[in-house]
Amino acid sequence: MSAAKENAAKGALEFIEDGMIVGLGSGTTTAYFIDLLGKKMKEERISVVGVVTSFDSEILAKKAGIPVMPLEGKVDLAVDGADIVRKDYVLKGGGGALTREKIVDYAAERFIVIADEPKADPGTTYPIVVEVIPFSYQYVMKEMGKLGLEAELRVGGKKLGPVVTDNSNFILDCVGEVRGNAGEFEKSLNSIPGVVENGVFSKFWKIIIGTGEGHYEF
Amino acid sequence: MSAAKENAAKGALEFIEDGMIVGLGSGTTTAYFIDLLGKKMKEERISVVGVVTSFDSEILAKKAGIPVMPLEGKVDLAVDGADIVRKDYVLKGGGGALTREKIVDYAAERFIVIADEPKADPGTTYPIVVEVIPFSYQYVMKEMGKLGLEAELRVGGKKLGPVVTDNSNFILDCVGEVRGNAGEFEKSLNSIPGVVENGVFSKFWKIIIGTGEGHYEF
Repeated sequence: MSAAKENAAKGALEFIEDGMIVGLGSGTTTAYFIDLLGKKMKEERISVVGVVTSFDSEILAKKAGIPVMPLEGKVDLAVDGADIVRKDYVLKGGGGALTREKIVDYAAERFIVIADEPKADPGTTYPIVVEVIPFSYQYVMKEMGKLGLEAELRVGGKKLGPVVTDNSNFILDCVGEVRGNAGEFEKSLNSIPGVVENGVFSKFWKIIIGTGEGHYEF
Repeated sequence: MSAAKENAAKGALEFIEDGMIVGLGSGTTTAYFIDLLGKKMKEERISVVGVVTSFDSEILAKKAGIPVMPLEGKVDLAVDGADIVRKDYVLKGGGGALTREKIVDYAAERFIVIADEPKADPGTTYPIVVEVIPFSYQYVMKEMGKLGLEAELRVGGKKLGPVVTDNSNFILDCVGEVRGNAGEFEKSLNSIPGVVENGVFSKFWKIIIGTGEGHYEF
């Protein structure tokens, strides 16, 4: 149990309204949000439909009693976690769900990032994650090197070899810095052939940071 | 049999040298190139290794006696076809192999486009093709609409429903124009979450056009 993560989730919960289509992110902090959203729906008798960002969030949504629908374009609000939080971008991808997360988060009219306080600490670092077409991974690793990013193929657990994503692709963890304008950097990574999506998220509505006592806007 | 396609292929063949790693494109024009390359290797006793861009080109390469290797980064020369040829870009994707094609073609030090003359006719049109994560296709169709592109999900043959690519994704055929700078347009399509790759190829070394009589550089 993490009070900080739960408090971040509570902060996002305040923006939920009856009838909304809500993007449900993936990861430990979002798991609190999904659980709390299910409870809120029962307690306040409001109706919300979820659009999930991973098989994991689908399982959690069903457990919480939140009906889910496919992404058809419209998402009122998306709530998702992050591995690192900065003023002009967040880094995601620890859970390997970055592509579906970005599709849903960016499809949403408003996207709220929730995170516990250590994620916002300037001393905390995290790799830049990219999802790649398996066929291309060695080529993309070399291209990342040209950008000063040291890429490593993510190897999984409970299966031999690389992690395979929900989209049947591979994941590269790339150690290095976001350089220049975060939005431009995000776009340039996606222009490398073989890169499906990357973990730099530069478009969001607000970031809510949870602490042991409550939450605040970053 | 198309003399024009074969002549385009012959034009590219002139750049093949012993010891090269050659990217083998996909499609009817490239099929001539692969066949001719196999013959050249036997006749001139030169050694070339292919990097394929689709299961189709892998089958053709093996038939032609060209050994194939995985993409490891280095490709000396790639030869690939196109559906439409313009001065500053070509459109590809008719065969649904655009993603692996772009990975190999752009990984190559030199990329030659081969096409028969009608592809260069300004009156010939072709949709802008995008490969998308299945989960995202409705969202991406809406985003394409915002760019003035009318997107349609490509439906296949010999199986119900949409075409599934070699990368397990869907294909959208988008009717509309390449606007502004082709390289920037290409980049902006890839920045739409859910888009894996698009059929605008703005980086190439040369374009060789085949006619009934011979070939010329576009």
